[in-house]
Amino acid sequence: MLFTRAAGVATCTGPARGSDDADPAGLREGVAVAVESGRIVAIGSERELGGRFGQAEVVDCAGRLLTPGLVDSHTHAVFGGWRGDEYALRSRGVPYMEIARRGGGILSSVRHLRERSEDELLEMALPRLAEMLDQGTTTAEIKSGYGLSTEAELKTLRVIDRLREMQPVELVATFLGAHEVPADYRDRRQDYVDLVVEEMIPAVADSGLARFCDVFMEPGVFDRAESERILRAGLDQGLRPKIHADELEGSGGAELAAELGAASADHLGDISPEGVAALARSSTVATLLPGTLFFLGRTSYAPARALLDAGATVALATDFNPGSCPTPSLPFIMTAACSQMGMSPAEALRASTAGGAAALELPAATGTLAPGAPADLVLWDVSSVAELPYRLATPIVRSVWKKGKQVR
Amino acid sequence: MLFTRAAGVATCTGPARGSDDADPAGLREGVAVAVESGRIVAIGSERELGGRFGQAEVVDCAGRLLTPGLVDSHTHAVFGGWRGDEYALRSRGVPYMEIARRGGGILSSVRHLRERSEDELLEMALPRLAEMLDQGTTTAEIKSGYGLSTEAELKTLRVIDRLREMQPVELVATFLGAHEVPADYRDRRQDYVDLVVEEMIPAVADSGLARFCDVFMEPGVFDRAESERILRAGLDQGLRPKIHADELEGSGGAELAAELGAASADHLGDISPEGVAALARSSTVATLLPGTLFFLGRTSYAPARALLDAGATVALATDFNPGSCPTPSLPFIMTAACSQMGMSPAEALRASTAGGAAALELPAATGTLAPGAPADLVLWDVSSVAELPYRLATPIVRSVWKKGKQVR
Repeated sequence: MLFTRAAGVATCTGPARGSDDADPAGLREGVAVAVESGRIVAIGSERELGGRFGQAEVVDCAGRLLTPGLVDSHTHAVFGGWRGDEYALRSRGVPYMEIARRGGGILSSVRHLRERSEDELLEMALPRLAEMLDQGTTTAEIKSGYGLSTEAELKTLRVIDRLREMQPVELVATFLGAHEVPADYRDRRQDYVDLVVEEMIPAVADSGLARFCDVFMEPGVFDRAESERILRAGLDQGLRPKIHADELEGSGGAELAAELGAASADHLGDISPEGVAALARSSTVATLLPGTLFFLGRTSYAPARALLDAGATVALATDFNPGSCPTPSLPFIMTAACSQMGMSPAEALRASTAGGAAALELPAATGTLAPGAPADLVLWDVSSVAELPYRLATPIVRSVWKKGKQVR
Repeated sequence: MLFTRAAGVATCTGPARGSDDADPAGLREGVAVAVESGRIVAIGSERELGGRFGQAEVVDCAGRLLTPGLVDSHTHAVFGGWRGDEYALRSRGVPYMEIARRGGGILSSVRHLRERSEDELLEMALPRLAEMLDQGTTTAEIKSGYGLSTEAELKTLRVIDRLREMQPVELVATFLGAHEVPADYRDRRQDYVDLVVEEMIPAVADSGLARFCDVFMEPGVFDRAESERILRAGLDQGLRPKIHADELEGSGGAELAAELGAASADHLGDISPEGVAALARSSTVATLLPGTLFFLGRTSYAPARALLDAGATVALATDFNPGSCPTPSLPFIMTAACSQMGMSPAEALRASTAGGAAALELPAATGTLAPGAPADLVLWDVSSVAELPYRLATPIVRSVWKKGKQVR
């Protein structure tokens, strides 16, 4: 298979931060991309590859932009119902934390998820994954965390596992038992942390259904000591750590993520300067979710420029969930990153591909177009990298390939 | 034709401002909608209308939300090329006005439009109108203003006129010769204002190709005296006034709009308290374009709540244009209005239908579902009004009818 006549091939092999000398999108012009057995085998001049792969099926990109498939490294896409009703309340000025205190928020999603069977959750998740694919996502992380009991958490992880066979988006599962303290543990939160550490984590590790263990570390949710205990218990059982850190209020989550060597610290809306420095010194990816802050009505976003300038690796993700960010669209997240966070289009694209792959600790070259990388490709109805975030809220995906197979 | 079994029918007959006693969306449940000869003829109980219109073709809405077609009352959808390159510059911190001073901004769109033939502009506009229709828009205003010569302005208006016959979105044309001072008049702006008043306006009025005359009144563009002179010249020739008012900096545009009895004052990002009061006392519609401020990286928006609370009629529109807001999506604008401006989903829907129709001075009942209204309808893949803005950047339009004919 030979992809020819693209306006540009964004290899996404550049550094996270753009400069006069370095293009995060790794844009190449006048090149073709050769694919064999689901992997990229060569990128080179049209003429050279036309000779080497003369028998291959040709995909004529006809002046359009070719990029890696997008990697959405932070979603909660398995849930039991939308929460538009809460959105109407919030638009009247009722704050998210107040809605949560009234039994809404995450706990209403917990009720929804517990009420639904595995098959029902599966049926509800399929169209959401199709929407993500429609927006260019070929690999996505999905978290549990609306179960908050050992059985309901395992049920969620089994749904994620079964979804793998039923549709083309490649899925990475994260256990998020520490998403919230469930209603039945409200007056004995210590018991809930014990349950997560002593029962859930061993059961999840034993099931082999999750790669990561995540915690919502935030004032009013889990504190630093609880978060560290949970993540260390996960590490002991082979679950790599991730943290919902400093989302709406600073809590030292970024610092803890760096200290534990977490795969990523996510949100960072109120990260401290010390947190920025800690992430920059570490291999922990700073995963930014600007759609959430936009949707919640905030006007200040994570300090993307400070993170990039300090040398951190940055990923962008949707946070797709029914409460604080019901969007499957990484292209919209790229617009938010460029318009509101000062990222360049090339930085935003790199953060939504190679950056996301790094946040999921996927094999090197995933999220890029380079020999050896999986042939996950998106052809866009635009001709430049800048136009990806520029075409605000417009569907511009033309075609998608997963491991060399056209899936859209 | 009988629309049955909708989860709800949002008639959009309520007031602009929601309260415990009044629903701007005018939501009715358990009702059917009867259509004959392209108009709505009845809304009533399923049972009653099932009897009265027993022979009609049935459209089974199957638990989905039915609303009026959206009315996008402020766009610049006829243009000669995208400007993604400028977006990349802006993301690096170069301000919009600085890009304009370098020959970018509106003036680059002027070069693009002048270079293109009428047929080319027509071909380029068609997919954009199709995208608007895909997002639920059945009526749209389009402004000239990238021509800035008598001939190029008339060319634009002819393109808008020809587009009417070629696709289903109903179009209303606005003459915006005073969008910017063109490069060749930079050192003699008074001559350009004379040209607009003495040559363009009579020619446009004579052509019958525009209903409105608009001015970009903003510090650095056209001042109050120039704007008033142009709009009064338009009024004398039968062109109803509109104003780009107080977009990024206050200029008294809202006050002037009210004084002239303009159809609408648009943008209002920096409207004064006096401007709010003036609009509330007048019949001039306050047209808000939050997508533009979001896309330009602003974090403060027009004071929607102050306008609604004061009693102004509010419309929402996309501002679809290649510089400051390249989106065809009114549903995204509704999200921005609810998440960032404190509007309720019902207020946002009403502002995107009946509010837009008021800003275009369309016949009463346009933009609503009521007997006598045109049968412009959208069936959405959601079941509640709140879910329209809630489903951030997700395509949720299922089907669209224009004057009773299914067009999507």
